[in-house]
Amino acid sequence: MGNAKKAGGAGLRGQVAGQTALCTVGKQGTGLTYRGYDVDDLATNASFYEVAHLIIHGHLPNQNELDAYKKKINGLRALPEAVKKTLELIPADAHPMDVMRTGTSMLGNLETETDFDQQRDKADRLVATLPGMICYWYQFVTNGKRIDTASDIDGVGAHFLEMLHGKAPSDLHARVMDVSLILYAEHEFNASTFTGRVVASTLSDIHSCVTASIGALRGHLHGGANEAAMAMLAKWSTPEEATAAIDEMLKNKTLIMGFGHAVYTEFDPRNAIIKKWSQQLAEEYGDDTLYRVSCAVEQKMWDEKKLFPNADFFHASAYHFMGIPTELFTPIFVMSRVTGWTAHVFEQRENNRIIRPNADYTGPEARKVEPIENR
Amino acid sequence: MGNAKKAGGAGLRGQVAGQTALCTVGKQGTGLTYRGYDVDDLATNASFYEVAHLIIHGHLPNQNELDAYKKKINGLRALPEAVKKTLELIPADAHPMDVMRTGTSMLGNLETETDFDQQRDKADRLVATLPGMICYWYQFVTNGKRIDTASDIDGVGAHFLEMLHGKAPSDLHARVMDVSLILYAEHEFNASTFTGRVVASTLSDIHSCVTASIGALRGHLHGGANEAAMAMLAKWSTPEEATAAIDEMLKNKTLIMGFGHAVYTEFDPRNAIIKKWSQQLAEEYGDDTLYRVSCAVEQKMWDEKKLFPNADFFHASAYHFMGIPTELFTPIFVMSRVTGWTAHVFEQRENNRIIRPNADYTGPEARKVEPIENR
Repeated sequence: MGNAKKAGGAGLRGQVAGQTALCTVGKQGTGLTYRGYDVDDLATNASFYEVAHLIIHGHLPNQNELDAYKKKINGLRALPEAVKKTLELIPADAHPMDVMRTGTSMLGNLETETDFDQQRDKADRLVATLPGMICYWYQFVTNGKRIDTASDIDGVGAHFLEMLHGKAPSDLHARVMDVSLILYAEHEFNASTFTGRVVASTLSDIHSCVTASIGALRGHLHGGANEAAMAMLAKWSTPEEATAAIDEMLKNKTLIMGFGHAVYTEFDPRNAIIKKWSQQLAEEYGDDTLYRVSCAVEQKMWDEKKLFPNADFFHASAYHFMGIPTELFTPIFVMSRVTGWTAHVFEQRENNRIIRPNADYTGPEARKVEPIENR
Repeated sequence: MGNAKKAGGAGLRGQVAGQTALCTVGKQGTGLTYRGYDVDDLATNASFYEVAHLIIHGHLPNQNELDAYKKKINGLRALPEAVKKTLELIPADAHPMDVMRTGTSMLGNLETETDFDQQRDKADRLVATLPGMICYWYQFVTNGKRIDTASDIDGVGAHFLEMLHGKAPSDLHARVMDVSLILYAEHEFNASTFTGRVVASTLSDIHSCVTASIGALRGHLHGGANEAAMAMLAKWSTPEEATAAIDEMLKNKTLIMGFGHAVYTEFDPRNAIIKKWSQQLAEEYGDDTLYRVSCAVEQKMWDEKKLFPNADFFHASAYHFMGIPTELFTPIFVMSRVTGWTAHVFEQRENNRIIRPNADYTGPEARKVEPIENR
């Protein structure tokens, strides 16, 4: 321990903790790529099935591969009885991320990964079932309905919206959900992905890794930012009101969610994409408040602090226009990021060393246990 | 990313990832202390209740505090109905660590930590309920019994043995279990503890942290070593047979579990303690094989490779003499280490920065999405 090197900063910031072929984040301060493809290019020219295939199976599928992959994912949507019964035991006031965590953990008891050869099948099964887990629980505790999560509907995002609303979504909503899932799919060594890699480094099973990642994403410094942005935006009914409130918040040094980023320095490449879709949804919805309020906040934050919105900020309004309850925003993140998480698990396993850093000791000097009567 | 510092080695080995006042491991190559107390001193002069109080509540209790703490822990042993029903849904062939992970995750839905002020109470509740979770499931799937986990029996280890065997343990067994829980309670930034700290760094709840840590401990590079040692030792019926087999294994470069350590360089301070108790249990049991075989393997590994047994090696025989099924060895580790895990969560929260390292990119250069017909 005496020889351990000092980290450059707390939180391992700026420290290289391993290698990845999956993703670049903010090279030259901008840009996000998945296996070399720009996220903008993927969000414009691919479906989430294609991106999931890229991340989990290593390449963009050709038409035959895509057809087979859709068929596989769509065929894996039904939940085991024991998962459904477990979800029914979770109260209505539970945290939806705890529901996702528990559903995933239970699935691991029933369909345990007993050999790493199964890892890609287990990942696909999670892509197929995570939307169903949250919707099954949500419909059960909200409407007392036991929904059938099996469905042939085209699209992972469309499947989620169908279960949530009880009917197939419009083409626009299906597309926006798909784009959203593409934008959140992978982001290098963020905290939830790094959590999964630490778990994977002990050679644990994939459900343990994903369960752990869900727990990390739950924290409001990580996955909860779009929910926090929505809660904030919902308070204001005009751009003027929003601008005045932001002034007040900045004066009081209140943290304003959805702005800035730990890695990007100039802008978040995902923002322009989701903002454009949010605008289109606002028009379709006939909204004259939320989108305008969001734009006013964006402008104000830039004028006052030169801070740019991150991926989460316009996701708030986009999800809201599609009728998604705010508390389900972070679970959507799980449905998407599970592709990145599992692919990082595969990478960690391929070239593994157990992740076991050192600590600086700041505690008491050596001392003796006093007999209890002397304490 | 271009400015990120290169780690000294894979797995963050030798890198300082934070501070702790909880533990020193292998200072000058030996020794293990919890908040300044040598583990040998604690294993000789304290109970696991006292050590849990030391780790979770910050100091060794005086008599009044100890009485109150025992009363608190013992009063928290009953499991909620929904946890019991969830455990009943887990099949008999599930991995016991998946059972622990799922039970903990379900508890988090029912008794969610909604404010960090609750963190010590949540930790105590986990200390009280984890032995019951594994035993409830184990008795249900093995014997079809729904056991009552509520009990006034003195001792966390005694409570576990009572639920497992359906009767109060002997004083010797109760003491050895307590010592074992003391030895495994805390170990600085090992992989499962570090996992919990990464999750905590997003400001997630304590059940997410512990669920994640359980998943990490499950990996056979981490928590599974005593089970692997037992499986190996059970194959041999004489010291001579064991010695010959070790020769063969060394020749074939087979990994021999229970020897050496990532941090200790001279010996594992926990080994001498559990070895002494294993010998005493062997005498009581009337064993003339397992303990002698274990000693022969220890001697052989030293003679051939100068490798010393770690904490796990003589735990295998000790647990076996107490009638504990091998697949429950790692869950015992959870019952103990939950004290260290939760205390590290408190520390992380007290001086937090989200743990978000960088990665070296080794993937494809920038490329364009080809239309699907050209792939």
